[in-house]
Amino acid sequence: MKLILIGAGNLATNIGVALAGAGHDLLQVYSKTEQSAEKLAAMLHCPWTTELKEVSDGADVYIIAVKDGVLADVAQQLAAEHEERFLVHTAGSMPMETLPTNRRGVLYPMQTFSKERIVDFKRIPCFVEAANDKDGELLRGLAETLSESVYEANSEARKYLHLSAVFCCNFTNHCYALAEKLLQEHGGLPFEVMLPLIDETAKKVHELSPKKAQTGPAVRWDTNVMEKHMQLLKDNPQLQEIYRLLSESVREGQKTITNNH
Amino acid sequence: MKLILIGAGNLATNIGVALAGAGHDLLQVYSKTEQSAEKLAAMLHCPWTTELKEVSDGADVYIIAVKDGVLADVAQQLAAEHEERFLVHTAGSMPMETLPTNRRGVLYPMQTFSKERIVDFKRIPCFVEAANDKDGELLRGLAETLSESVYEANSEARKYLHLSAVFCCNFTNHCYALAEKLLQEHGGLPFEVMLPLIDETAKKVHELSPKKAQTGPAVRWDTNVMEKHMQLLKDNPQLQEIYRLLSESVREGQKTITNNH
Repeated sequence: MKLILIGAGNLATNIGVALAGAGHDLLQVYSKTEQSAEKLAAMLHCPWTTELKEVSDGADVYIIAVKDGVLADVAQQLAAEHEERFLVHTAGSMPMETLPTNRRGVLYPMQTFSKERIVDFKRIPCFVEAANDKDGELLRGLAETLSESVYEANSEARKYLHLSAVFCCNFTNHCYALAEKLLQEHGGLPFEVMLPLIDETAKKVHELSPKKAQTGPAVRWDTNVMEKHMQLLKDNPQLQEIYRLLSESVREGQKTITNNH
Repeated sequence: MKLILIGAGNLATNIGVALAGAGHDLLQVYSKTEQSAEKLAAMLHCPWTTELKEVSDGADVYIIAVKDGVLADVAQQLAAEHEERFLVHTAGSMPMETLPTNRRGVLYPMQTFSKERIVDFKRIPCFVEAANDKDGELLRGLAETLSESVYEANSEARKYLHLSAVFCCNFTNHCYALAEKLLQEHGGLPFEVMLPLIDETAKKVHELSPKKAQTGPAVRWDTNVMEKHMQLLKDNPQLQEIYRLLSESVREGQKTITNNH
């Protein structure tokens, strides 16, 4: 397919590499930042522009991967040039209706993207939605050239997917960051010692549900250990509060198990 | 070595299998619960008992893997039978001094253990400590037959390791559980859709520090998305509070980066 990529951030970079790898014809890359546009265009061997009004006509799909806050404005400008363009955004938390065109859709690849680390798109669950059946088929076909896991999800379902992704990825990564900080401040062991535990915690939920996989003082409600941990965190009331709230939440999650059985 | 294993829970089961696999001579398994004692002894092809006073003499090391709350009492009873026994506990959060004997030590394997899932001990970081150098060498030698990553850590350092493990494992797993619950309650997508994201989040910190790997609305301080998420959680004030606190903590973690650079 003939495609134009709007954006050159973490997601745009990763989806751009996947699109090029799948053999699509990338007509152009847009970014408002010249350096980013140029760099991504060089990776994808295609022309670039920093002006939305210079974005070419003739693409089958315009894939918009920009910050949520500017999405509506960028889409409006693209539609102003040619209102028959098929605009597709990639944002988990934005409704399809953010796009002003009749031909519109969403392709949400649920993954954490960094420019520094190009991920294998084949394994990324992609959630698609379109305003009409024909574009839906076209978009699904496009998504299936990128990923082996393509699902349909409307804007309402996608909201909860995105929120779940925040827990499974952003907050999980922040738990790693808090551990890194604790180790740095006390004893100086390198963060690498945590990696086998992190890996096993992730692997375990391939076999057991997270509820069944839960271990640690909170699930045993071992107040002796929990009080010691709260004591270790006494200089950081915010972290103490995170510890307390997550521990209570672990306990309540387990109660639900008991009630269900 | 001749070993006796005190306990038959998640950790005892996993370390027992690793000890047997490394060719050690397991003289006996103890558990106060007959069924657990019998089951683990069958796995390890060794005798078992449910009475601490029937625990045999003649082991080089007595490895105690019982709940933190009963550790002191169990160790006291084992010492009462023969005060020259070399007692070693396996608990991250308990000081070595919980053991009453002169010959005492700790072998803390930092991992999440379930009976249902036997893990490869070779990759588990094990932290050892002993009351005297000779026993320290003996214990380190024993740990090295189980794991390729053996470190020395005193009781003070071990406290923070254990607390860090709670963040990297228990709280991380709970974030997975919260996502599972959100998906179940809204849209009914299976938890399996989150696995590629979970795996990538874990893999990513092998290459980037957790601070640098951080993505999501909180690190961009995208209040528009965060407010939408808070709104989705409006029926669950506890979860809202967790969302709010973790988002603020993500933001503050990133501030530290800026200050350091």
